Amino acid sequence: MIICKVVGHVWATKKEDSLVGLKLMVVSEIGKDNDLTGTSFVAADVVGAGVGEHVLVVNGSTARIAAGGENVPVDCAIVGIIDTLEVEREEGSVK
Amino acid sequence: MIICKVVGHVWATKKEDSLVGLKLMVVSEIGKDNDLTGTSFVAADVVGAGVGEHVLVVNGSTARIAAGGENVPVDCAIVGIIDTLEVEREEGSVK
Amino acid sequence: MIICKVVGHVWATKKEDSLVGLKLMVVSEIGKDNDLTGTSFVAADVVGAGVGEHVLVVNGSTARIAAGGENVPVDCAIVGIIDTLEVEREEGSVK
Amino acid sequence: MIICKVVGHVWATKKEDSLVGLKLMVVSEIGKDNDLTGTSFVAADVVGAGVGEHVLVVNGSTARIAAGGENVPVDCAIVGIIDTLEVEREEGSVK
Amino acid sequence: MIICKVVGHVWATKKEDSLVGLKLMVVSEIGKDNDLTGTSFVAADVVGAGVGEHVLVVNGSTARIAAGGENVPVDCAIVGIIDTLEVEREEGSVK
Repeated sequence: MIICKVVGHVWATKKEDSLVGLKLMVVSEIGKDNDLTGTSFVAADVVGAGVGEHVLVVNGSTARIAAGGENVPVDCAIVGIIDTLEVEREEGSVK
Repeated sequence: MIICKVVGHVWATKKEDSLVGLKLMVVSEIGKDNDLTGTSFVAADVVGAGVGEHVLVVNGSTARIAAGGENVPVDCAIVGIIDTLEVEREEGSVK
Repeated sequence: MIICKVVGHVWATKKEDSLVGLKLMVVSEIGKDNDLTGTSFVAADVVGAGVGEHVLVVNGSTARIAAGGENVPVDCAIVGIIDTLEVEREEGSVK
Repeated sequence: MIICKVVGHVWATKKEDSLVGLKLMVVSEIGKDNDLTGTSFVAADVVGAGVGEHVLVVNGSTARIAAGGENVPVDCAIVGIIDTLEVEREEGSVK
Repeated sequence: MIICKVVGHVWATKKEDSLVGLKLMVVSEIGKDNDLTGTSFVAADVVGAGVGEHVLVVNGSTARIAAGGENVPVDCAIVGIIDTLEVEREEGSVK
């Protein structure tokens, strides 16, 4: 999963039938220095996330599992809303 | 899904049999500052998109679901035409 | 699918049994300004492509579908030879 | 698999039902010069890894296999704790 | 498939049960100018590759097929040892 911030909504009237009813949100990945990396995706939301929240996002075939089934044409989904993130990150070498 | 602009068409006479009849379009990803990132793909179009439109594009195995079945050798598909995109994006840090 | 140019051949005597008989070619992705991006892959060719031709390449599980079945250990395949590519690409902003 | 260092924990109360009970950790990829590349993921841990350890991480559909089943909406998982890594890496050209 | 050089070994005592018995090697992708790009992976080796050899590497779900079955939690595998690589690569534009 990647850590993203929900930054918006997207509406599409003309779309694949099986997308109807899904809530689609724009999410932006959060990078090393806690800023938005500029990489944005449109994700199906199944946990009721709102704009401004930090969320867990899955990509690929896993997003179909999350969005309700193998036949939903979705490759990105919000699967959790982050409460707390504890990261120990020293600068420089990893050892 | 990623947000792309439809920028062109591609024709291939010699191709996998199961690709015959699919409309193939060139799409270019739209980046942070609303410009084209330079990353282009060829996507199967199943929603009737036209050049210049902003669309939702799926990649990977999900594109096969969208394009009509597990046996269609497609890894990129247009699944929606975007009407409205509402993005709140402050500059700088995310919190 | 991504747009590539076929740039070479690769031979491997010692390989997975199910790769035997597959024609393996080196393809290089074509970037924004119509030059090679430097990103190269080895792809199974099922359409009879030759060096110098522009081709459509699929990645991931879709390549197995193209290469002849779920059990072929291939994650990249050439699925079409491009005849014509029509791209409208203005510089700058997308709108 | 990619080589990562475990750098933290993440908690999400509101999440997909099938994520309940999974231990979620933040991992950061280790790059060429043995430093953290800045690319971080949230991974399900099934081997009991702790913060500071170097681990093997799988992505995509393989993570579901590792995390316990096709229906677990996870696309990143820790599958091993690294004891020893022996890398011969001369600078410059590969030949 | 991508073209890599085998650069090392990795040992992990504590790991997913189904990884036991698999030989895990560190591979580094070979880039445009024939140098190592810095992108390294840990791959399951099923063809008996040795350090220093140039190999074909598959990623994603295809690696599971190569490594022996759908339930092996592997997303990277060596599927061939390269004998000869013939690449025609002019500098500059592709046409």
